[in-house]
Amino acid sequence: MGNKAVTKPFSLNDLPGAGRMDVLCRCTSQALFISHGIRKDVEVYLLLLGPPEPPKVVLVKGNEVKRMSPDERNIAGHIRKALTVECDKRWKKVHSGVYISKKGLKELLEELSKNYSLIYLKEDGVNISKAELPSNPLFILGDHEGLTEEQEEIVEKYASLKLSLSPLSLLAEQCIVIVHYELDKLTLECFTQP
Amino acid sequence: MGNKAVTKPFSLNDLPGAGRMDVLCRCTSQALFISHGIRKDVEVYLLLLGPPEPPKVVLVKGNEVKRMSPDERNIAGHIRKALTVECDKRWKKVHSGVYISKKGLKELLEELSKNYSLIYLKEDGVNISKAELPSNPLFILGDHEGLTEEQEEIVEKYASLKLSLSPLSLLAEQCIVIVHYELDKLTLECFTQP
Repeated sequence: MGNKAVTKPFSLNDLPGAGRMDVLCRCTSQALFISHGIRKDVEVYLLLLGPPEPPKVVLVKGNEVKRMSPDERNIAGHIRKALTVECDKRWKKVHSGVYISKKGLKELLEELSKNYSLIYLKEDGVNISKAELPSNPLFILGDHEGLTEEQEEIVEKYASLKLSLSPLSLLAEQCIVIVHYELDKLTLECFTQP
Repeated sequence: MGNKAVTKPFSLNDLPGAGRMDVLCRCTSQALFISHGIRKDVEVYLLLLGPPEPPKVVLVKGNEVKRMSPDERNIAGHIRKALTVECDKRWKKVHSGVYISKKGLKELLEELSKNYSLIYLKEDGVNISKAELPSNPLFILGDHEGLTEEQEEIVEKYASLKLSLSPLSLLAEQCIVIVHYELDKLTLECFTQP
C-alpha cells in the first residue's frame, strides 16, 4: 500500500520523489522474482493513494507478465505505463500481465477476500512461526509509514490473521522475501526430507 | 561478487547495463537497511570484476555511512562516486563509510578471513537450519551467474561452511534478507520468549 505513491506518470530518475515509488518497485520485484525465473502463482496489487488521482490499483500477474526484470527502474517503467491509461472500477489491461483499476482499499479488499485468505503483516501480530497459514493467502503490507488508523480498521475487518515476522521493523520488501521463504518451507518437500 | 560489474563510472539510468550493477545495489540495500534504520554492525564488500580496470572492491560500513537510502539509484550513486577515485591495494576513503581498494578475490578473502568466519552461500550447501553459525560470520555470494570454477576453488579454501537457504535458486539480495532473518532469530531474545 503506497499512501503517497503518485497516480500520474512520474520521472524514472526519481522514484523516491514519486511518493516512494521505489518501495513499491522493490516489493513487486521481491514478490515476483527468483533467480532466472518468475513465481507464476503470485499476483501483486499495488494500491497507489498519492496525488493527483487517487485511488488507483496496479495489478501484476506473475503468470502473464512479460519483459519485466527485477531492477527498480524496469518495474517503475511498467507502473508508469499503467498510469498513462484512463481507468475506471474495472480491471483494464495495460499490457501482458499488467492491469489497472480505480479502486480504493475497501473495494479492493472486498474483491480479494472472495478468492484469498487475507493476512495483515504488522509488528504486533502473532509470529509467523506460531501460526497456521491458510491456503491461498494474500498478504497486506503498509509502506514505509505504515497504515493510517482508518485503513487499519478496514484491513482488520477483512484479514483473518495478523502476523509478525520479526521483532525488528523491516522494509516492506524484506517482509515479502521472508513470507516467501516461510511459505516455500511449507510447500517444497525437499525442505523436510532428511 | 559482481563478475561483470563495471569498474569505471557508469550511467545511473542503466544499472543492469553496467554489468548488473542493479544486483549489487539491491544486495547493499538489503544488507544494510531495516525500516527507518541502518544495521550498524554490517559491512558490505562489493567485488567488481568487470571492465575496464578489474578488480576493485567497494566497501560500505553500516556504522559510518551517511546519505545512503535503500533505493538502487542512490546506492549506485555511491558506488559510481567510489569508481571516480584512483585506488591501490590499500583501503581509500571515498566519503563517510564508503571505501575503495584494488584487491582481487584471493587478497580480499585472505584479509577478511583474519577477522571473520567466512561462509559460502550455495544451493548445494547444508541447510542453514541444520548448521551452527559461527560468531562474526561473513557471507559470500555470487551474482546472477554464480562463481566460476576457479573462484569457487578460492572461496572453498577460505570458507569454513557452505550453506544453502532454499531448494529454490534465489536472487542474491533475497539470500541476504533470509540470512539476516535467521541471524536475528538467533540474536534477538524476543524471538525466543514465550
